[in-house]
Amino acid sequence: MKLTRRGEAGFEIPLVEIDGTLYDASAVGDFTPEFWTANGPRKLKELADEGKLTPVELAETVRYGSPVASASAVICIGQNYAAHAAESGAEPPKQPIVFLKTPNTIAGPHDEVTIARGSEKTDWEVELGIVIGSRAAYCASAEEAAEHIGGYVLANDLSERDFQLEASGGQWSKGKCSPGYMPLGPWIVTAEDLDTSDLNLRSWVNGEPRQDSRTSDMIFNCAEIVYDLSQYMQLEPGDIISTGTPEGVALSGRFAYLTPGDVVELEIDGLGRQRQTYHAWGK
Amino acid sequence: MKLTRRGEAGFEIPLVEIDGTLYDASAVGDFTPEFWTANGPRKLKELADEGKLTPVELAETVRYGSPVASASAVICIGQNYAAHAAESGAEPPKQPIVFLKTPNTIAGPHDEVTIARGSEKTDWEVELGIVIGSRAAYCASAEEAAEHIGGYVLANDLSERDFQLEASGGQWSKGKCSPGYMPLGPWIVTAEDLDTSDLNLRSWVNGEPRQDSRTSDMIFNCAEIVYDLSQYMQLEPGDIISTGTPEGVALSGRFAYLTPGDVVELEIDGLGRQRQTYHAWGK
Repeated sequence: MKLTRRGEAGFEIPLVEIDGTLYDASAVGDFTPEFWTANGPRKLKELADEGKLTPVELAETVRYGSPVASASAVICIGQNYAAHAAESGAEPPKQPIVFLKTPNTIAGPHDEVTIARGSEKTDWEVELGIVIGSRAAYCASAEEAAEHIGGYVLANDLSERDFQLEASGGQWSKGKCSPGYMPLGPWIVTAEDLDTSDLNLRSWVNGEPRQDSRTSDMIFNCAEIVYDLSQYMQLEPGDIISTGTPEGVALSGRFAYLTPGDVVELEIDGLGRQRQTYHAWGK
Repeated sequence: MKLTRRGEAGFEIPLVEIDGTLYDASAVGDFTPEFWTANGPRKLKELADEGKLTPVELAETVRYGSPVASASAVICIGQNYAAHAAESGAEPPKQPIVFLKTPNTIAGPHDEVTIARGSEKTDWEVELGIVIGSRAAYCASAEEAAEHIGGYVLANDLSERDFQLEASGGQWSKGKCSPGYMPLGPWIVTAEDLDTSDLNLRSWVNGEPRQDSRTSDMIFNCAEIVYDLSQYMQLEPGDIISTGTPEGVALSGRFAYLTPGDVVELEIDGLGRQRQTYHAWGK
């Protein structure tokens, strides 16, 4: 099952794709925390089985919004691929490294991105995002933690490296929270419909390849991350956990940072593709 | 004007105290982001002037909830008092150090606190909290930034020092997000009714004094913090910014960390007093 939200920003309608057919999901409600709390995916499946959902057709030109609405938290994992940790000048972590983004960073997958004012080091990060399906606290095991995963989504954890590393005494969030710096989508795939153990994830800038790795190279896999986080915080339905980026970002020194006019594309097997054009602030 | 929310958790009613009289504020709505967006404090003042608010009396035993509802972000400033930076082993910062807590850490000011499972280093932090009154992005000056402050609130930025400093590669949020680790209140004072330039802020553990400083010792004052943050993120109505803690926490090595049965009290001039009893997880 794929969940999407389409329409102009702030006016998206929820849609579900089941067995290749697109249906209006409004009868169950928007993809907010309440959707997950009320076991929305199962309800959608039941309604589809009963023939009660309305099939719809949408022009491909209709904007894709973030498929996640009103997340209470955007939780990110740092340096979760050994080669990326190395290119960032760090040792592979012994436990997941956690930082947060404000939820107002979330944007549609193809929305234009405004490069933060004063930014000279805006950097892409293709990441596998987890969507929490049910409240998780003090999970007893990674197996139990996996039960709290509602789905997966493609994420671009955009970062401003000077803001992240220089402007806040080493705490990263300052370089992670510029408006629009967390494109999500185009869709959520529900957990039972995607095996995330060995997905290819890639990014391009202006058509040139940048990142090209596999989720099998993650130091901590999705269930292990949810398990670890749940020992320190309570994960809420609809929360996003972005599981870290592989090597091939500008921070490595091998590539230029983003400048106005650049086009970034990102893709993960089964989770679709994003395409963003970047422009300068105030232009 | 003072804003409070009273009642059992999840069932609080909004109340406003104007010139010493307590009124039901439900006619304007709960103290969510929408309340600030719709200029709720001015509406309450107008309704009070027109005699349209209903005065109410409440027993002091009725629980105080967090006076802030549904904050989209809880933003914290680190090491904003020179003496606390020193006791933490750090130089005073050149720019505000920023980290985030998840909003589900917010609790009422006198709620019992469950010490995080496995915690041996839970620490108090009395802090002056800012409540954002209107969206702020790229403020031109500290003066302009001050216009976006809706009010102030007493906060306890509870921290688990091992989780904060050891379990996440130096990123602090893991030690800041245990459920209930951000007691707020008892009330919000609207910005025009409190001069925050030189307030005494204090904390006690089991009646023994711990912190005792003044906001005049803050390295960055409230307007400067909002100005700085607005260069890096968009601040939303109802967001909380906790402006850092002064010296006198357990991390200094001078005091024991919190254990079950401890009672923490905190107070800031004009912003009331909190009193929390601590208990062990699962007890």
